[in-house]
Amino acid sequence: MGQSITFHKADKLKPKPDGSKPLGFGKFFTDYMFEMDYSMEEGWHDARIVPYGPISLDPAATIFHYGQEVFEGMKAYRTEDKRILLFRPDKNMERMNQSCARLNIPEIDEQFVIKAIKQLVAIEEKWIPNEPGQSLYIRPFIIGTDPALGVHPSSTYKLLIILSPVGSYFGDSMSPVKIYVEDEYVRAVKGGVGYAKTSGNYAASLKAQTKSEELGFDQVLWLDGVEHKYIEEVGSMNIFFKIDDEVWTPALNGSILPGVTRASVIELLQHWGVTVKEKKISVNKLFKKAEKQQLKEVFGTGTAAVISPVGFLKWNDKVIKVANGKTGKLSQKLYDTLTGIQNGKIKDELHWIQEVKTDKQEGAKEKEEEKTATVE
Amino acid sequence: MGQSITFHKADKLKPKPDGSKPLGFGKFFTDYMFEMDYSMEEGWHDARIVPYGPISLDPAATIFHYGQEVFEGMKAYRTEDKRILLFRPDKNMERMNQSCARLNIPEIDEQFVIKAIKQLVAIEEKWIPNEPGQSLYIRPFIIGTDPALGVHPSSTYKLLIILSPVGSYFGDSMSPVKIYVEDEYVRAVKGGVGYAKTSGNYAASLKAQTKSEELGFDQVLWLDGVEHKYIEEVGSMNIFFKIDDEVWTPALNGSILPGVTRASVIELLQHWGVTVKEKKISVNKLFKKAEKQQLKEVFGTGTAAVISPVGFLKWNDKVIKVANGKTGKLSQKLYDTLTGIQNGKIKDELHWIQEVKTDKQEGAKEKEEEKTATVE
Ligand SMILES: Cc1ncc(COP(=O)(O)O)c(C=O)c1O
Ligand SMILES: Cc1ncc(COP(=O)(O)O)c(C=O)c1O
Repeated sequence: MGQSITFHKADKLKPKPDGSKPLGFGKFFTDYMFEMDYSMEEGWHDARIVPYGPISLDPAATIFHYGQEVFEGMKAYRTEDKRILLFRPDKNMERMNQSCARLNIPEIDEQFVIKAIKQLVAIEEKWIPNEPGQSLYIRPFIIGTDPALGVHPSSTYKLLIILSPVGSYFGDSMSPVKIYVEDEYVRAVKGGVGYAKTSGNYAASLKAQTKSEELGFDQVLWLDGVEHKYIEEVGSMNIFFKIDDEVWTPALNGSILPGVTRASVIELLQHWGVTVKEKKISVNKLFKKAEKQQLKEVFGTGTAAVISPVGFLKWNDKVIKVANGKTGKLSQKLYDTLTGIQNGKIKDELHWIQEVKTDKQEGAKEKEEEKTATVE
Repeated sequence: MGQSITFHKADKLKPKPDGSKPLGFGKFFTDYMFEMDYSMEEGWHDARIVPYGPISLDPAATIFHYGQEVFEGMKAYRTEDKRILLFRPDKNMERMNQSCARLNIPEIDEQFVIKAIKQLVAIEEKWIPNEPGQSLYIRPFIIGTDPALGVHPSSTYKLLIILSPVGSYFGDSMSPVKIYVEDEYVRAVKGGVGYAKTSGNYAASLKAQTKSEELGFDQVLWLDGVEHKYIEEVGSMNIFFKIDDEVWTPALNGSILPGVTRASVIELLQHWGVTVKEKKISVNKLFKKAEKQQLKEVFGTGTAAVISPVGFLKWNDKVIKVANGKTGKLSQKLYDTLTGIQNGKIKDELHWIQEVKTDKQEGAKEKEEEKTATVE
């Protein structure tokens, strides 16, 4: 798409959040957002960066009634030498198109949306926080906007990208979380939309999530919707188990979200020579492994938390304390490596990083080129 | 709730749709809508009837990301003697609260929302169409509005009610529809949100719906998500089978929407002395019954279509032609009785009807009371 992106300057910029207080997750939003519309006639059009502000929709819009929506979640990281890095944005865009296909939403030009993300992040670079664990969360999403109540795919859509400076999802330190095996509520089932990043999956999960919090847990561990036997994933993370010297994770089966962090952890472990098994894992088998002291570590993976060690696991009346309730060695190594790559401190051997160039840098580069030209 | 409803008059009213053309479903909207907000501190508050128009939301609002939404669908009918009737609005409000409970949405005061619906319909009475099969569709819905990206129930909500003059959902005559047994995609599963009227269920259904249309069918017949064996419901209808002299319908199991029309058909049939069985019905058994000529009629039930006879049923390579592709006697009788009750032509023996009083009538009534008072 040779489309250009127009820029509408805001009259006034917002104050940045107080750096001395925890940022939390998704509470502050930057000065600008990206917006683009879709119609049958024009396809995706009118790409623009505009001041962050309310969007105005007909109350009959598809999104309010039939939930036609997809979203993505990724981050921009600030390096010590002030560069801005994105972690595998191509993977997020690829997944966004997979979600679109499931939700009858017209596909996007992945490269163009990456370009839009970079342009928006470059404009908002002052909003990228600097402290360890902090980053600029990037939330692209698409909503159906047709003002019509028949149950049909919308013929018009809006794609937006909003940015939020965030701390770590689970608070400011990497302390192990407590999770709870949910066996009443179900998140997704084969043939449904579990593998898509779409709002309905999260709506369905709220009840179990609040139940787990009431019971004193941080997150829910979902079981499959058919037999209520096999482990799927956590609230907003995929899940990994270190069993002796191997690492196991549930195989992608249509109802699990294919996490970008999950894929990266698998690649990284394989790169290190660790055996990774993507397989059907029954909760029963897992608890047996734990009884036999073979369950060494458990951790969740996701963009928000990167690696989140699990210290306690509850299933009915059985409780496992994992790695003595502490962060395991492998979890720590994965966390350090991934965040290291994301922050530019560790060499990006697997070619996961894309850099965001700011005008300043572009300007500097141009000047240098000019210089070179002059020198010639 | 002793809350009062404020009224904000529109500067200009819209032209009504051209009466000579089919209205379709959910394409036109009236001049006004009802709106009410929820916050933790104030509960549901600021009930108001305002000009129909765009709603303005923060792009981070829960509805756009985590799909916290419930809705209802009901109708106002115009009788020949110009009265306005609602069909079992209490049932819709009861279901709305069941949906709210599943989606972590604060409950509504059912009687108050019925009052709001009546007030809105009374104001918009000129929009209630008069032709057979036509009515004023009423769509109450609630959306989560918190501008925050953590996966948590919203703390603020908006309830809206919009109105749309509609024809019949399936076109203007009661011609039998063709349905297709879907065995790849799944709508809902036990433990999920299938029994709730929430947007995510419909988002998940679009793919199968468009597939069935491409294959030349009108709607999808969903099977259960666990075994893909048992019949659940149709796209936006519950389903009934007349087997010899009995009527069968899938039992409510947590993944089927408990239709108001479904409940009413069951009560009506029982009132007539017909045996109704709510049970697990395998598609295999159904097709066997059809082979043995025991399957006499098939019909869907829902607010939009009331009764929709099914003429053809396809499951893999098997096809059933039901009642010779025509509308069966029982389907016709149910349709005539239900629409008769709704239009005020048939006596409301089961006490399903609530009348909407307009200012005019209230005025007339008051005058009459005054007269009576004078006479005394
Ligand atoms: C349900 C669910 N599973 C897993 C993940 C992890 O995916 P990713 O690593 O791409 O962030 C997420 C998203 O953050 C999620 O929402
Ligand atoms: C999935 C689904 N099933 C069944 C029905 C029928 O319900 P009701 O009779 O209350 O309209 C509907 C709603 O219209 C529906 O959306």
